[in-house]
Amino acid sequence: MDQIQSYINEHKDRFLSELCDFLRIPSVSADSRYKEDVARTAAFVRDSLVAAGADHVEICPTPGHPIVYAEKIINASLPTVLVYGHYDVQPADPLELWDSPPFEPVIKDGLIVARGACDDKGQVFMHVKAFEFMMRNNLLPCNVKFMIEGEEEVGSSHLGDWIRANKERLKGDVILISDTSIIANDIPSIDVGLRGLSYVEVEVTGPNRDLHSGVYGGAVANPISILCEMIAKMKDENNHITIPGFYDDVVALSSADRAELNKAPFSLDEYKRDLDVNDVHGERGYTTLERTGIRPTFEMNGIWGGYTGEGAKTVLPSKAYAKCSMRLVPNQDSATITRLFAEHFERMAPEGVKVKVTPHHGGEPVVTPTDSVAFKAASMAMEKTFGKKPIPTRGGGSIPIVALFEKELGLKSVLMGFGLDSDLIHSPNEHFGVFNFLKGIETIPYFFQQYAELSKA
Amino acid sequence: MDQIQSYINEHKDRFLSELCDFLRIPSVSADSRYKEDVARTAAFVRDSLVAAGADHVEICPTPGHPIVYAEKIINASLPTVLVYGHYDVQPADPLELWDSPPFEPVIKDGLIVARGACDDKGQVFMHVKAFEFMMRNNLLPCNVKFMIEGEEEVGSSHLGDWIRANKERLKGDVILISDTSIIANDIPSIDVGLRGLSYVEVEVTGPNRDLHSGVYGGAVANPISILCEMIAKMKDENNHITIPGFYDDVVALSSADRAELNKAPFSLDEYKRDLDVNDVHGERGYTTLERTGIRPTFEMNGIWGGYTGEGAKTVLPSKAYAKCSMRLVPNQDSATITRLFAEHFERMAPEGVKVKVTPHHGGEPVVTPTDSVAFKAASMAMEKTFGKKPIPTRGGGSIPIVALFEKELGLKSVLMGFGLDSDLIHSPNEHFGVFNFLKGIETIPYFFQQYAELSKA
Repeated sequence: MDQIQSYINEHKDRFLSELCDFLRIPSVSADSRYKEDVARTAAFVRDSLVAAGADHVEICPTPGHPIVYAEKIINASLPTVLVYGHYDVQPADPLELWDSPPFEPVIKDGLIVARGACDDKGQVFMHVKAFEFMMRNNLLPCNVKFMIEGEEEVGSSHLGDWIRANKERLKGDVILISDTSIIANDIPSIDVGLRGLSYVEVEVTGPNRDLHSGVYGGAVANPISILCEMIAKMKDENNHITIPGFYDDVVALSSADRAELNKAPFSLDEYKRDLDVNDVHGERGYTTLERTGIRPTFEMNGIWGGYTGEGAKTVLPSKAYAKCSMRLVPNQDSATITRLFAEHFERMAPEGVKVKVTPHHGGEPVVTPTDSVAFKAASMAMEKTFGKKPIPTRGGGSIPIVALFEKELGLKSVLMGFGLDSDLIHSPNEHFGVFNFLKGIETIPYFFQQYAELSKA
Repeated sequence: MDQIQSYINEHKDRFLSELCDFLRIPSVSADSRYKEDVARTAAFVRDSLVAAGADHVEICPTPGHPIVYAEKIINASLPTVLVYGHYDVQPADPLELWDSPPFEPVIKDGLIVARGACDDKGQVFMHVKAFEFMMRNNLLPCNVKFMIEGEEEVGSSHLGDWIRANKERLKGDVILISDTSIIANDIPSIDVGLRGLSYVEVEVTGPNRDLHSGVYGGAVANPISILCEMIAKMKDENNHITIPGFYDDVVALSSADRAELNKAPFSLDEYKRDLDVNDVHGERGYTTLERTGIRPTFEMNGIWGGYTGEGAKTVLPSKAYAKCSMRLVPNQDSATITRLFAEHFERMAPEGVKVKVTPHHGGEPVVTPTDSVAFKAASMAMEKTFGKKPIPTRGGGSIPIVALFEKELGLKSVLMGFGLDSDLIHSPNEHFGVFNFLKGIETIPYFFQQYAELSKA
């Protein structure tokens, strides 16, 4: 397996060049204008897997964007690793804040800069190249199946149905996912918990048309003001969320577990300096690591209404809108939380306005086991390539499909990601370190090796 | 003067056709992309005044959009009426809510539908056509001067300087303005009070870049949430504005004056039905007519931040913005109120965010006299053409230049407008009744006649 080092040295320019081709296709799943591009990206993934040596490579249509499936079965008696990833990306706006166009990747100062560089095209491509290495050198130690989807950034709406329809084909032993971060390039880590998600859009309607704020102002409910008041009431003075029942199912961590979690390397000063804020802001009684790791949140993702152009317009608008999302922790249930939010929001609406709540997508929180063969294999693989044992961490983000895999396939996941929190995923100037990309390609074959060996025992 | 009826009958198709030409030019003063169109509109006004018979017609440049000046001096010993109006219009968005394109006027069901149809191109054009009638029939009974500006919708920023530089040329006896409404087509009215305006834009900055709401959510101040909380705190539970000192200079009306004001024809049921709201919403202790007429307001005009596109994006944005405006009543001062707002908003900002307040434009509240020759002339003219004495009302809107004229030229204004509150000015599908347009053309010559006669006495 140690040939991986020299294989990377020999091929890294090609790997980077191919990754840039992958990043150049704007696979924005949220925006229907990119539908063709998303389809072209699926074809790119298919072609890459074929070239790397996979069998039965197939673009599986769904009512939304397609899923790319591939496999290499070397021996039915050996264990099977299912690799999951996604080839779709977040919208790139605000475009004006990018230093280079989001879909024209550049490699600069050791960073690959493009939308999707880290989340998740770069990390998906590590798996394709690690697989290529194992195939070309006849080193694949077990079976592998790939499921690379195109709707992760919009809630994986059609993955569940597809999985249920393909249970036989998807039989395996563990799910391997690279869509998370390590603490630092010299502090490897593995996510052992992910928050769930409830994402909703709200609409507040006041008068039936936009009005002149001079003629009607002061006498009619202004939907922007009402929306702001309703949002303000979603948290109390301690930044606890006020939705009745919101915390009912939250599993509280023991003091010992909280103490353990807070041992992770973290500098509040560096954190504030990095974000250029004079203070952090969150739920009273919890540290920043707890706020982002083990506590549920209510976060505003977007708001709009009225006149937002240049200059001044004295309008009292008819409608105001917002998008907001709640991150969930074990044992919260996303459908329940969405319902509690909707009921609360509708109940809060004062006379003079109508409100509408539209759920976008949800996902369940998960905790992955640290005593499994797969976790041990990932830990040993990272220790081999980083020279340090990885730290188990609780990630704040959500990969809703982890709970889905568990429910539908009965399989646990291992979250062996190689990004950094500073990679600006979902933001302008998203990037992925060349170091991280190559380190992923280097580490993955060791995971397969360790996993195959430990499974034998 | 009674020939005006037959003149209108003979020429009304041409009047409407010319007005449509005027409306077709998109003179959006707030948006710099329309600069050339605004200039073309000024030229249209100039040409119309020349054709109607005015002298010394001139497009007067300013650092912003130009002012069109014209005059007809028939005898220096006669009184002089200064007609003020504006040829610029509000932005037309949201475009998708227009039933026909805003700058392609259509006449349908007795309504001229276009941006600016009522506010204020249609009303300006009534004066041009009434003047044409008086000139062609040798009936102009006194001197007239026109000042038609192109920056009313953006705060008349350069009118003050221009007036101060042209005091000699602008000498006169009264300002006549048609930029307001009547109560109904069978209930004529004249505005005797206008609210002032303070318009501000605010920006709240949290982290220095857009963040992933999963990774950072719950731990960093979200500028949308903070902005909403700050806006919510601008009013208390009685919808009183909480800015310290905001009400200090407000002149309270006597009970008798309030009782008089509430005698104006008004049906709360019709008002609610027209706006499709189940209740009105405003400052406790005041009626709807008081809320829109004699009380100051704080109104949200626009808000934006984060992801506002299709679908879902789990972003914790760096910035959120809002536009808001306060309507002021006698004796509030717009610069003082703007300062009080800015100080309050900056003081309210919690740790973890930075805020910025940008004043847009302001204007002072005014009350116009009802015992003047000019008011009597307007009242008699309307009584003549509507067959009913007009009711004096307090308008909720602002025409900041009324205070400016008083200060710089020492002249009072008469607000003889012919629109309706239902004309959707500043909204999609703005319109102006053909009845109202022609009624204005019919009434204006009587005003001149009455004003000249009463001035002699």
